[in-house]
Amino acid sequence: MSGTRLSDSTRPLANDPTDRRRFLRDGALAALAAGALTACTKGDAAATPVATGKTAPPAPPPTPREKSEAMDRMHEAGIKAFPAKTEGKGNQLMSPRIADGVKVYELTATELQWEVEPGRRVSAMAYNGQVPGPQIRVREGDRVRVVLHNKLSESTAIHFHGLELPVDQDGVPFITQPPIKPGETFTYEFTVPLGNSGSHMYHSHHNATKQVGGGLLGAFIVEPTSPRAIEKVDHDYVFILNDGTHGYTFNGKSFPATEPLTAKLGERIRIRFMNEGMMIHPMHLHGMHMTVIDKDGWAQPAPWKCDTLNVAPGERWDVIVHCNNPGTWAFHCHILPHAESDHGMFGMVTVLVVEK
Amino acid sequence: MSGTRLSDSTRPLANDPTDRRRFLRDGALAALAAGALTACTKGDAAATPVATGKTAPPAPPPTPREKSEAMDRMHEAGIKAFPAKTEGKGNQLMSPRIADGVKVYELTATELQWEVEPGRRVSAMAYNGQVPGPQIRVREGDRVRVVLHNKLSESTAIHFHGLELPVDQDGVPFITQPPIKPGETFTYEFTVPLGNSGSHMYHSHHNATKQVGGGLLGAFIVEPTSPRAIEKVDHDYVFILNDGTHGYTFNGKSFPATEPLTAKLGERIRIRFMNEGMMIHPMHLHGMHMTVIDKDGWAQPAPWKCDTLNVAPGERWDVIVHCNNPGTWAFHCHILPHAESDHGMFGMVTVLVVEK
Amino acid sequence: MSGTRLSDSTRPLANDPTDRRRFLRDGALAALAAGALTACTKGDAAATPVATGKTAPPAPPPTPREKSEAMDRMHEAGIKAFPAKTEGKGNQLMSPRIADGVKVYELTATELQWEVEPGRRVSAMAYNGQVPGPQIRVREGDRVRVVLHNKLSESTAIHFHGLELPVDQDGVPFITQPPIKPGETFTYEFTVPLGNSGSHMYHSHHNATKQVGGGLLGAFIVEPTSPRAIEKVDHDYVFILNDGTHGYTFNGKSFPATEPLTAKLGERIRIRFMNEGMMIHPMHLHGMHMTVIDKDGWAQPAPWKCDTLNVAPGERWDVIVHCNNPGTWAFHCHILPHAESDHGMFGMVTVLVVEK
Repeated sequence: MSGTRLSDSTRPLANDPTDRRRFLRDGALAALAAGALTACTKGDAAATPVATGKTAPPAPPPTPREKSEAMDRMHEAGIKAFPAKTEGKGNQLMSPRIADGVKVYELTATELQWEVEPGRRVSAMAYNGQVPGPQIRVREGDRVRVVLHNKLSESTAIHFHGLELPVDQDGVPFITQPPIKPGETFTYEFTVPLGNSGSHMYHSHHNATKQVGGGLLGAFIVEPTSPRAIEKVDHDYVFILNDGTHGYTFNGKSFPATEPLTAKLGERIRIRFMNEGMMIHPMHLHGMHMTVIDKDGWAQPAPWKCDTLNVAPGERWDVIVHCNNPGTWAFHCHILPHAESDHGMFGMVTVLVVEK
Repeated sequence: MSGTRLSDSTRPLANDPTDRRRFLRDGALAALAAGALTACTKGDAAATPVATGKTAPPAPPPTPREKSEAMDRMHEAGIKAFPAKTEGKGNQLMSPRIADGVKVYELTATELQWEVEPGRRVSAMAYNGQVPGPQIRVREGDRVRVVLHNKLSESTAIHFHGLELPVDQDGVPFITQPPIKPGETFTYEFTVPLGNSGSHMYHSHHNATKQVGGGLLGAFIVEPTSPRAIEKVDHDYVFILNDGTHGYTFNGKSFPATEPLTAKLGERIRIRFMNEGMMIHPMHLHGMHMTVIDKDGWAQPAPWKCDTLNVAPGERWDVIVHCNNPGTWAFHCHILPHAESDHGMFGMVTVLVVEK
Repeated sequence: MSGTRLSDSTRPLANDPTDRRRFLRDGALAALAAGALTACTKGDAAATPVATGKTAPPAPPPTPREKSEAMDRMHEAGIKAFPAKTEGKGNQLMSPRIADGVKVYELTATELQWEVEPGRRVSAMAYNGQVPGPQIRVREGDRVRVVLHNKLSESTAIHFHGLELPVDQDGVPFITQPPIKPGETFTYEFTVPLGNSGSHMYHSHHNATKQVGGGLLGAFIVEPTSPRAIEKVDHDYVFILNDGTHGYTFNGKSFPATEPLTAKLGERIRIRFMNEGMMIHPMHLHGMHMTVIDKDGWAQPAPWKCDTLNVAPGERWDVIVHCNNPGTWAFHCHILPHAESDHGMFGMVTVLVVEK
């Protein structure tokens, strides 16, 4: 997912991904343009200085044509800003420490400010400073230890959503364990069951509407010991959807700060959709279909195809895309108010770039 | 989908579709009744004239029995008004002009008032004056040209949702093309890929929350070169769901202005559900089940049966109904507040009439 | 679904279900704690008596630690109260009267107050005083008579959702029958079609947003004449979801008044999810996966597995759980604000207890 410029102001460049430096330069111009735009559309006659003794006449209201042009410039500025640089990056693959054959993951939960898109910072809770938390990727049969240090101001616990563990590792306060209080450390340890491979999640199961909405969530991927032929892909993308107080996000960021997916022409990619939010998100890929292979880590009886996949809260769906159509393809939630307004695209939008 | 009377005031007539003239006469009576009803339920003592010198005593509040009867009359009036005549009809099959072997569709986008149900007109955007726009129906491998004349007051573009086209035909402003400004004409031209048959859509992909919600959408059906046996049906219905500022609609109309589906006993029909809205709509057919064959134009691995099919935004689902149960069958979204209130049925309601 | 204590205050007891007496004692303590808690969190300085001449200093605001502890106590109190005793129990299996080989079910619709969780009573409509109404369970080919006595203050009718009946038994006022007015009795009678087995529902189809939301709904289960091997289970649970004015409920009750599901280790259970509400509810089971076998009473082409099953309004989904993981497993809607707040779990939460 490297930097990819989508367009410049004179011609569509869908097939011409280019480097981050140029994007940054263009992005800066776009930001200036966006600023000018904002001033223009707010056009506030009352702010005209009157101390000169000469009162400026009030600006005429914008014509329909001017409004249309302003709308287009806002759309363009958003696209040109993509992929926008923000502070912080979630879902980074975490390397475990190995202790006596056990894969040990140390997680520290804290409260922080998280930059969702340029300049928009929200109150967040995070594992290891990341929203989503670090990506945990193990193998069926692995012995795994997750050590949680609670540096939040409230209690918490981790549920391993999709893993079929002994009940004392299930992470539900007062049902399977006491809550982990502020300042405390709690250790989960288990063997990942054979047959339980696939796309799972870990997240808080205490005051969870707030804590999961706030960012205490991450991908827990279990690699199978014997992958199926259809699973052999060139890239493997985790795609976590959320929709709480942070706004509409993919992997913790809103457009234009979302990351593009990239592939070379002819490659096959896997996308692991995971919904950690409160709403459905029917994910629509342009230009190519998706072949659905797994639901919640379990193989579907037969793969099936679609271009719009409805992902409900708590669900995981794994799809394969054969990237046989070159270009830059919009990829977004098809609940349109999650993706676009008259100010341009926002929220749950990214692209899949298929490079020739 | 011709006029079909559902009932009269004395007996249920579910198996007795009759002519539009009688419906119109009954409808007029029903409208009168509904009007009287409204006056009754609003029963406003403050409106009593006082200039006579004799103040009328305030009307007593309605008894529960009177309220129940009033509710029933409103329900009955809605049913008797069905299918109500309104101005404008969307989703009409469009015949292309053939130019050098290319099927040419001319679309003009305008802003207009659209009558969603009798007397309720909403601000709309439409292709060729229709909501949904004209139905485009081509065949795999066809060469197709879509010429869009933008007579809106703002820019637009068309995305062919579900078609796997070259990226410069994908219709996403600033990613694959410039926006089409007011007054401009833009031409899309492409060969419909082999293997890409099924129920697709075309719609705006610019300021789309407003433009698609406003009506810039239509069915794009691709016939296969070799239909499967299960696809050989007696009627083929397109059923587009929407839920924006126009209210809850099927093919651009709300009950009682929705159109009934009709079939003769023993016939098989295909229904192509397409959701262009922002919400799920679980479609429930009474009396017979639906056999789901396709998702987003792609065959499901095996057909499967249901009576309530959840259709999410951007999705298309194709089903077959074997019309083996005679009668007039309610057919509605099962989110009940999308279909009924104490004022009767409204919004996402129609019927399937199976004639003996 | 007998009483099951989940925890005490000193240690997690996930594998140790115990008796109701102890639960009640603990529950009383928990209620006291909860009451003290409420007073503490409301901590209202203005209520301090001033007539003593000595004004008490205002209480300091709670520290973060105190707030965290208060939150934990509310969570604990909820869990300890589970399964909480309330007045009324819905979905009770109804034994028909047999008259000339016909299974006769007498239903009386009334308005009443329904206790959704301890101390929270809501205005409801109910069949035979139950929300959901009595569970009707018949066999394919049975002759069935349902006699409805309408003792509501408004008209009603029953639709047998999922059954493929003659149209005059379909229960849609003004389309298939007149409304059943207050004080009237109406008799439905039909033969359950062969091949129409599975998890169906009966509910009002008149003013249904209010009447179904209010409680006029129940399970209508049709046993097959030849069950499939996969249907042979140790327990068969009906699990009706609702989300109207009663709040988020399972079988008419909100946590902690929901009922636990129970099984012995190694048993196989069937769960029949039915959504009578207005929203989707993705049901998540901890600890074990669910194998989906039927949709709306129709066998899926092949069983498939998941741990989170999205159930939309009007849908029924049947799943099998092989209870091979001992413990007390949270089982809840994964739209988190339907299941938990900072005051603890509520609404759409129960547990599956797998006893060793």
